[in-house]
Amino acid sequence: MHVLVTGAAGMIGQKLVRRIVGEPHIFGQAVSRLTVHDIVRPQAPETTGFAVETIAGDLADAADASKTIAGRPDLVFHLAAVVSGEAEADFEKGYAANFDGTRNLLEAIRTAGDEYQPRFVFSSSIAVFGAPFPRQIPDDFFCTPLTSYGTQKAAGELLLSDYTRRGILDGIGIRLPTICVRPGAPNKAASGFFSNIIREPLAGKEAVLPVDASVRHWFASPRSAVGFLVHGATLDTERVGPRRNLTMPGVSATVAEQIEALRAVGGDEAVALIRRERDPQIERMVDGWARDFAPERALSLGFTSDRSFEEIVRVHVDDELGGEIGPPT
Amino acid sequence: MHVLVTGAAGMIGQKLVRRIVGEPHIFGQAVSRLTVHDIVRPQAPETTGFAVETIAGDLADAADASKTIAGRPDLVFHLAAVVSGEAEADFEKGYAANFDGTRNLLEAIRTAGDEYQPRFVFSSSIAVFGAPFPRQIPDDFFCTPLTSYGTQKAAGELLLSDYTRRGILDGIGIRLPTICVRPGAPNKAASGFFSNIIREPLAGKEAVLPVDASVRHWFASPRSAVGFLVHGATLDTERVGPRRNLTMPGVSATVAEQIEALRAVGGDEAVALIRRERDPQIERMVDGWARDFAPERALSLGFTSDRSFEEIVRVHVDDELGGEIGPPT
Repeated sequence: MHVLVTGAAGMIGQKLVRRIVGEPHIFGQAVSRLTVHDIVRPQAPETTGFAVETIAGDLADAADASKTIAGRPDLVFHLAAVVSGEAEADFEKGYAANFDGTRNLLEAIRTAGDEYQPRFVFSSSIAVFGAPFPRQIPDDFFCTPLTSYGTQKAAGELLLSDYTRRGILDGIGIRLPTICVRPGAPNKAASGFFSNIIREPLAGKEAVLPVDASVRHWFASPRSAVGFLVHGATLDTERVGPRRNLTMPGVSATVAEQIEALRAVGGDEAVALIRRERDPQIERMVDGWARDFAPERALSLGFTSDRSFEEIVRVHVDDELGGEIGPPT
Repeated sequence: MHVLVTGAAGMIGQKLVRRIVGEPHIFGQAVSRLTVHDIVRPQAPETTGFAVETIAGDLADAADASKTIAGRPDLVFHLAAVVSGEAEADFEKGYAANFDGTRNLLEAIRTAGDEYQPRFVFSSSIAVFGAPFPRQIPDDFFCTPLTSYGTQKAAGELLLSDYTRRGILDGIGIRLPTICVRPGAPNKAASGFFSNIIREPLAGKEAVLPVDASVRHWFASPRSAVGFLVHGATLDTERVGPRRNLTMPGVSATVAEQIEALRAVGGDEAVALIRRERDPQIERMVDGWARDFAPERALSLGFTSDRSFEEIVRVHVDDELGGEIGPPT
C-alpha cells in the first residue's frame, strides 16, 4: 500500500508519519511505500520496512499537484494548508494554498486516468462554522465561516463530496477540533493561546491569557487528531453515504476548566504562571468560534476522542514531555 | 447608476433586463447605463433612456471576466451559469462556467482597485441542498448538494460571503426555487417536466409526467424570481449581516396540486394532455430534491413570492400567453 501525506512537515503531519512508521500495518495491510510532501522538502522518517520518498512542491501549482500524485498513492492524507491567521492576513496566499491547492490535488487525481480512485482523507476544521450558534452544534448545521480559512476549508469539503459522488476518489473530510495542546513554538493560528496557557506553564514559563475564563471552545489532543485521520483512512465508507464531511468528537471546555485541568496535572505553581491580559482583537475573533458540538455521526462511525480536558493535558505530558513536568532541573 | 447582468441571454436574464428597461428607477436611482453579458452576445434591449452595452465573453477566462467589469458597474447581477443537467453531463464545462466563472468575476472585482465595491447579486439555487431532509428545511440547514451544479453554487455562495466580509463587494446570494412555469423550449434542467406539464397543455400540446403525482417540490414563478433579484439589489444589507445567502420563499406543491391548479386555469381538457410515463432515472434524481422550506430570514427581509401554485399558473398565462389559453385558433 502506497500512502501519501501532504503537509507532512506540519505538526499533525509529522505525528501521522511517525505513527505510520511505528505501525506499518495500521491501515490493515502493510505500507510498502510512503510519500511525504510539503512546500519545503520534509525530513524523511527513518524506517526499515518500506521506501520513503520526499517531495517539495506547491499544490497551488497544478503541475506540482500532478507530480505529487504521480506515484498513484492508494491512500492520500491531504493536510497541507496555510493556517487561519496567515490565510486571514494574506488573502491571495490563503486562497492559493487552501483553495487552489486542494482543487489541484483533486483534479490531478481526476485526470490521472486508468480508474485510479484513492481513499482521500481531507483535514478540514471547525472553522467552517461561524457564530451565532445553537448551544450545541448538530451535524446538520450550516457552514457560514467567518474567516477566509474556514471558507477555503468549506469549499474543499464541497469538492470532496462531489468528487466522491462522481467516483473520482473515496473521500472523507475530517473536521478537526482546535488541537490542544500544540507542542513547540506558537504558529500563526489565532487560537494559539488555548495551547500556550497549558504548554508554557508545564514548561515552567509564563503564558498570556487574552480572553475571559468563561470562554468555551472545542478541543482534541494531537494524538486524537492523528487517530481521526487513521480511522478516516480505514473506515467502511459505504456506511458514510454521500455526506462525506464529519465533525469530529472533542472536549467542550471553558478556559476556567482548562486551568483546573492544568492545576490537577501541574499544580498551583503552574497555574500561577498564567498572566491575564485581555486582547480585544482576539476576544472578538473567539466570539465567533464554536463552543460545543453534538457529533453524532462521527461517534456512530467509530471516531473517538479524549474524554476530558485533563486527559488532553496528560496526553501532552506523555507525548511531548516524556511524562515529566516542569523546567529541566 | 451602471448595472451589469451576466447570463443576460438566459430566461431570467432576459426578463430582468426587460424589467430594468421598463422601470429604470427600479433601484431607487435612475439607471444611466446597462451592460448585458452572455457567452454569446445578447440582444441589446430597445431603450431610449440610457446607454446599453453588449458583451460576449466566457467568465471561465479570467481576462474576459476582467473585461466584463471594466466599466465598473455599481450593481452586478451574476446569473451566468451552465444548468444542472449540463453541469452533470459535462464535469469540466460545469466547473469552468459555474465555479471558475464565479470566482473569476469576484476576483476581477477584487483586483479592480480604487475602492471599487459593487452590490453583487448572485443567483444561487436550492440545488445547494441534498436529501435526506427534514419535512421543512430551515434556514440553518447544511448544504450537502447531490449534483455538481449544486456543489458549484454552494462554493460560489461561500466565496460571496467571504468577499463580502472582506469588503471587496456587497454580496447577496439568492437561492432560487425551481422556476415554474419556464416559458419556451425545454432546457437541459432535469426539473423541466414540472414546467412542461403546465406549459404544454396550456398550449394545447401533450406533456410527459415522468414521476408519481405525490412528488412534492418548491416553486416560484419567473416573475417572482426577477422580484427576488431586484429586492436583493436594493435591500439594506446591514440588516442581513454576514450570512449573505438566503433561501427564497416559494410555493411547496405536489405534482397532484400542480395538476389541480392546471385544471382550475385550463380545465379538464388541459389536464387530459398530461401523459404519465414514469422514468426511473428522473425519479431517482427528484428523490434527492428539496420539498419544502421555512425561509424565515428571506421573509423577514421583505422577499415575497407567489401565494399558490394556481397563482404561478396564472402568472404564466398573463406574462407569456397574453392572458390567452390554448392553441392559436
